[in-house]
This record gives sequence, structure tokens and C-alpha cells, in this order.
Amino acid sequence: MAKNIYLDYASTTPADKRVVAAMAPYWDKYYGNPSSLYRLGLKSQQAIANSRHAIAKIINCQPEEIVFTGGGTESINLAIKGSVLAKKEKIHIITSMIEHPAVLNACSRLNSLGHELSFLPVDQYGLINLKDIQAAIQDNTALLSIIMANNEIGTIEPIAEIGAYLAKLNKQREKQDLSKIYFHSDACQAAGLLPIDVQKLHVDMLTINGGKIYGPKGIGLLYIKKGTLITPLIDGGGQENNRRSGTENVPAIVGLAKALELADKEKNKEAKRLAGLRDWLIKEISQKIDKTILNGHPEKRLPNNVNISIMDIEGEALLLYLDEIGIQASTGSACTSNSLEPSHVIRALGCPYEMAHGSLRLTLGKYTRKEDLKYLMKHLPVIVKKLRQVSPVKVNLKKVKESIAKAERKIIKV
Amino acid sequence: MAKNIYLDYASTTPADKRVVAAMAPYWDKYYGNPSSLYRLGLKSQQAIANSRHAIAKIINCQPEEIVFTGGGTESINLAIKGSVLAKKEKIHIITSMIEHPAVLNACSRLNSLGHELSFLPVDQYGLINLKDIQAAIQDNTALLSIIMANNEIGTIEPIAEIGAYLAKLNKQREKQDLSKIYFHSDACQAAGLLPIDVQKLHVDMLTINGGKIYGPKGIGLLYIKKGTLITPLIDGGGQENNRRSGTENVPAIVGLAKALELADKEKNKEAKRLAGLRDWLIKEISQKIDKTILNGHPEKRLPNNVNISIMDIEGEALLLYLDEIGIQASTGSACTSNSLEPSHVIRALGCPYEMAHGSLRLTLGKYTRKEDLKYLMKHLPVIVKKLRQVSPVKVNLKKVKESIAKAERKIIKV
Repeated sequence: MAKNIYLDYASTTPADKRVVAAMAPYWDKYYGNPSSLYRLGLKSQQAIANSRHAIAKIINCQPEEIVFTGGGTESINLAIKGSVLAKKEKIHIITSMIEHPAVLNACSRLNSLGHELSFLPVDQYGLINLKDIQAAIQDNTALLSIIMANNEIGTIEPIAEIGAYLAKLNKQREKQDLSKIYFHSDACQAAGLLPIDVQKLHVDMLTINGGKIYGPKGIGLLYIKKGTLITPLIDGGGQENNRRSGTENVPAIVGLAKALELADKEKNKEAKRLAGLRDWLIKEISQKIDKTILNGHPEKRLPNNVNISIMDIEGEALLLYLDEIGIQASTGSACTSNSLEPSHVIRALGCPYEMAHGSLRLTLGKYTRKEDLKYLMKHLPVIVKKLRQVSPVKVNLKKVKESIAKAERKIIKV
Repeated sequence: MAKNIYLDYASTTPADKRVVAAMAPYWDKYYGNPSSLYRLGLKSQQAIANSRHAIAKIINCQPEEIVFTGGGTESINLAIKGSVLAKKEKIHIITSMIEHPAVLNACSRLNSLGHELSFLPVDQYGLINLKDIQAAIQDNTALLSIIMANNEIGTIEPIAEIGAYLAKLNKQREKQDLSKIYFHSDACQAAGLLPIDVQKLHVDMLTINGGKIYGPKGIGLLYIKKGTLITPLIDGGGQENNRRSGTENVPAIVGLAKALELADKEKNKEAKRLAGLRDWLIKEISQKIDKTILNGHPEKRLPNNVNISIMDIEGEALLLYLDEIGIQASTGSACTSNSLEPSHVIRALGCPYEMAHGSLRLTLGKYTRKEDLKYLMKHLPVIVKKLRQVSPVKVNLKKVKESIAKAERKIIKV
């Protein structure tokens, strides 16, 4: 029988059957428009209120601080553009070089409108340094956006530490009559696997996406701390407390809440299980295949993320071979995997161009079993060997490692 | 047994069971990210391509002219803001006084950024006059947005006529080196019931919403004619041909295509059936209840729309009584029904303030049967009588009608 082993959970997750079941009655039984005055409408209104309440409890905020959107990308755009466009003057934004394209492109859009923009470098494990943030901050800085856990390499950033620093700094800045620096974190990858407590993280805004946590696609949320000024991107009937108009997607909102509830209940145990599988897989690959480099941090790492550069092969070719034997994997972000450009994240680690091409991302999930990884490891070394036989590239691993260690890491201002 | 008669199909529709079934495999079987390189991803990519193709055939455009969004409100915002923000200079927008709040508020947002804005009046039946459009056009006019069929009063606007006029005018304007006037139509209410042929309508952009046509909520589309310049509102991974980023909502896209296919197949017969019920209901109400005025056009009217102002009563009170006997109805747009302001659409017809309060919108749909309307008509006159007994207001119907006929109708420029 043909194998079907999904190892691309960071790209998107199947909806959990319990999520699908939770949504079911809202398609054609409780379908009322929540803005309606009759009971069928109130039923929808109540479903939204209950979902908002449940989520607020999980991420430790007030229900009215949650805005439902059409997905992670929209939430990120609302956070970044919404908070910046609410300002009258041109301001300065800080983000990192390893953000999701939604963050990078939302920031670039603002940059093209005249706002200043600084990109923070990362170390060779993908970690952002607080000192770089301190160095990048200007008098007119108004927004910092940092990914909580990277989607490609899994590195977990020190969000709580950065948030605490900013909270303290903002108190000083208030006295100096300088703009508050809002702090947004893209937690799309983190949400299903790490604890999210917006108070402990000291964030003003935080993005979560249904399609990455076994919830429905086409739904996301943005936590917006009370008092944060946001100009909506989508105007209309004034839903979501005037911050995101459009008839509420009730089934998906119910599904998102269900997905977060399941994650909250199951993630401690599941994260431990996944970390075990992850560590086994990393060890196996490094033992069975020579000339590899683990991308991302060895410990501060999502429990489900394995990202390894395998020298002297093309990542795309590897993916196609894996697909043929029933394994679904990725080279990096699915969002850019259709392009042949090497990953901006791998490049930001300091990796030379030719190495960034050969990165393999394996992200584990709910349905991943040890035997799946054993099956992978039965085939991966063979495929790599085959690809290397036809490869014109022969890099020197030692030189690559030296090059990474020596890579220039500085703030880029545009 | 308690009755449950939904007469608010213009507010939102239940998803058709065939739509729910079409979406089902995409939640947890074919869940791949369409940007992935493996077959599970290609399966999703193919599902989107097939949906786009099917819809393009129905509305008579090229598949690449369709952009999937998170709903009607987002599509409208993308059309209006996207086309205006793609311009370097400040321009002039024309819309009507009876648009959906999404159009009005998207236009107002642009107005607050310095773009000029003109609102067209309507006649007492809600019809927009081509002469008013001609009078409103300026050298710097760059966008006209007109609703195809009004969501509250059902009046069908002469979109094809306006579009043909604009197409001709734009040729002249090109010679004079004046900006092209883009034409957007909000077809959210029209899509399920009227033929939509974007070539015959001569529109540059057109909005359709899943949640109004027995499709899923949280999905919409914007037709964008090739060559139309649009700045995206949501930046990121570059999905939807760089016009709307975010991982595609595959189940909802499949569901939207299914809903449009079903509508396309069934709407001729269904529109005829609904128009029969509608006309029966209008006649019944006007015969059994005195002091009423039909809002909207007597003939150029959506086949499922009944909107009647019943003098000397409060619309909200009427809705609650109807809900008690199992009938779901509305006073106007669901999007604003939580507010106590009288409908801007009814006001635009020339109706005095006190009358705008008493409008009852009954919108019929797939599951509406004659016996449902008979049940309504058994109770409505009794409820109206009861409400009138306690009403402090006694309007003079003749004076109201005179006031409507004499109402000032002029272009408002802001």
C-alpha cells in the first residue's frame, strides 16, 4: 500500500475532526447573521461571544481584546498597517530579517509610503539579540514586530524578555514625550505548541492563525491590547468592535476556538512527544547522512521542527523524490516554495547561497508516529546519495561553517 | 410544534447541503497548502484552479480575473481602496446614497485621506439616474461604485446601461488624457438571483459574497478586469496573483464555486418561483394592512425582496413579535440593525424620519413555501393592529407620500 506521511505541519494542518464537528451545525442550522435581532441571530452572537471568551481565557486577555480576521496574514497586516496608519506622522518600524513574508511585505508597503524601516539581524541559530533592538530604536520608532517561533527553522525568540524591556522603555519614553513602541508578535507557528500568555509576553498585539493549529483555514485572530490605536483595513458594517468589518464567519470562529481549546488541553503532552521524535530524527539524520547542518537553535526550538541543510543537493529535487515515496516535506516556507529563490531565513543565518538551496524542513504533528520517521530514514540517505551522485556542486563543509560563523550581522535600515 | 420560518435571506443564507458536502474532503483529507510542491499541495492547487475556472465561466471572464477574498466586505474594500490607492494623485470617487455600509465606509475612509467623494441621489423607488452620474463626473473622477441590486429595498440598478456609458466615455477621456473611470458593482445580493455577465455589465470590478448565495461564510470574490491597477490591502506570500495574500481557504473556495454553480443552474426557475411568492405577499400585505408603502421599485426588483413601511409602528417591536411566533425578518440591513438609526436607504428614497423606522424587510429564499407566507399573513395584521393601538404616532399617509414625491434629490459632494 502506498504510504502517505505528512511532515509539513508548519505549512498547514488538517482540521481536527473535533473542529470539523464543532463547526458543523453552524453551516445550515445555526446560520443566522449575528447582527440580527431574532433568536437565530442571537444564537450566532452567543456562539461568537463564547468563542471569544474561551480564547481570551487561554491567551489571558479580555474577550474584547480579540479581533477575528480572515487569517494569519490578515491579522499581521491589520497589526502592522493598522497601528502605523493610525498615526498622523511618518514613523519608524523595526522588524527582523527572519519574519514571515506577511510581516516583511506589510512593512515594505509602509516603507513605500514613507515610513522608516529597520531589519534586525539574527545569530547563526536564528536568535534575535535584545542589544540589536536597543541599537535600532529611534525617537520616532512606533512599532516592533517579531515572530514568536520561526516558521522555517523553529527558533523560539525571547518575546517575553523583549516585551518586558519595551514595557519599561515605554514608561521612560512617555516621560520624554516620545511615541509608545507597540509590540506585535506573529505567533502563528507557536500557538499550537507553546504557551501563549499575552500578559507574560508583554505584547500589544499578537497573531494566531486557524489553519496552522488544526483549526479551519480562512480564520485568524489578532489580540489587540486595550488602548492600542488601530485603523481598520476593512471598513463596513462595524463588526468586531469597528476594527474588522464583514459578516462574522461563525463556523470558522467556533472552529478556531475549538482548535485553541484542544491545543491548550493537549499541547504539554504533545509537545513533549514531538520533541522526542524531533530529537530522534535530528540525531538520525546527522548520523546517517554526512555533510549536514542543523538550521535553527539546538534547544530554543519548536518541538515539531527539523530543518537541516544537506550539502550538495537541490532541495526541490529532494522534495520530489520524497513525494514519490509518499512523504510530504518542504524546503522552507510553503508561502515561497513555488519560487526558486533561496529562503531569506536560511540566508539570514549567514548561510552561503548554495547551501540555502539544500535545506529540508520536516515539521511533525498530531498524526506523526515513530514508524513514519523510521520509514523516512530508511529512504532519505539513499535519495541523498543518488542526488549527490549527479550534483555538480561539492561544497566544503568546514568552509561553509566558517563562513556562517563569520557572516556579517548588522541592522539594515531602509 | 413551534414554527421556524426564515424570511431574512438577504441578511445571510444557510449553506446548501451540497455546498457543505463539496467542502467536506478539504478539511482533513485534501488539506495541503496549495503552494506546496508535493501532490497533496497540487491537489489543493487544482481544486482552486477548477473553482476559479467554473466561476469564470459563469460570470463570463478569464479565470485569472478572479481574486478570492475573505468575504463581500473585503472584496468591496479591495475594489475601492485598492484601485484608488494605486493612484499617485488625489482623485474623485462617485457612489450612491443607497450603498452597503462597506462601500460607504470604504469611500469615507478614502475621503478622510483627501480624496473627493460624491454621493448620487436616487428616485423614490431607489433608482439611480444616469444623468446624475453624468453631472457628478469630474476630470479627476477615477472610480464609480454602484450596487447592482439593493440589499434593503431590492431595487435593481441599470448597471449594464451605466457600464456601457462609462466605457464610451472612457474612450473620450483617454483622448483628453483624463483618468479612466473604473466601474465597480457590489453584486452580493444580485449574484444568486440575477444573471451576472461582467462583459455585458461593462464593469471593471464586481463583488460576490459566499454567505449570501447559500455558500460558505468568510469567502468572497472580486472580479478584476485585466489591466485594472489594484494595490493589495493584505500583503504577504503573494497568493492570488499578488493581489490578496494569505494561505488560500481551499474548502471555502470550493464551496463558493459550488454555490455559484448551483445558483447558475437553478436561478431562472427559482427566481420565477420567488417572484410569484413576492408578488403574492406584497399584494396580501397591502390588502390586509392599511397605511403601508412598498419601498423599492415595483418591477425592477429582486425576486425575493419585499420591503414595506408600515405606518405608526416601530420596526424593532414588530421584529420581536414576529420572532416570538417563529418568523425571522429584518428592518433593513442586518449590518446596521443593531443600531437604532433609521435606514440610510429608506431615508434616501425621500421618506420622512418617522416612516423609516417602521420598515419591514422580508426576503424569501430556497426554503420559503407559500404556506410560510400564509402563516405570516395570518399573524402580521394582528400584530400590526396591536402595535398601532399603543403607538403614539399617527402619520398622515397622504402627506407622507407627498413628502416623498417632493423630497429634494441632489448630488452631495464631500
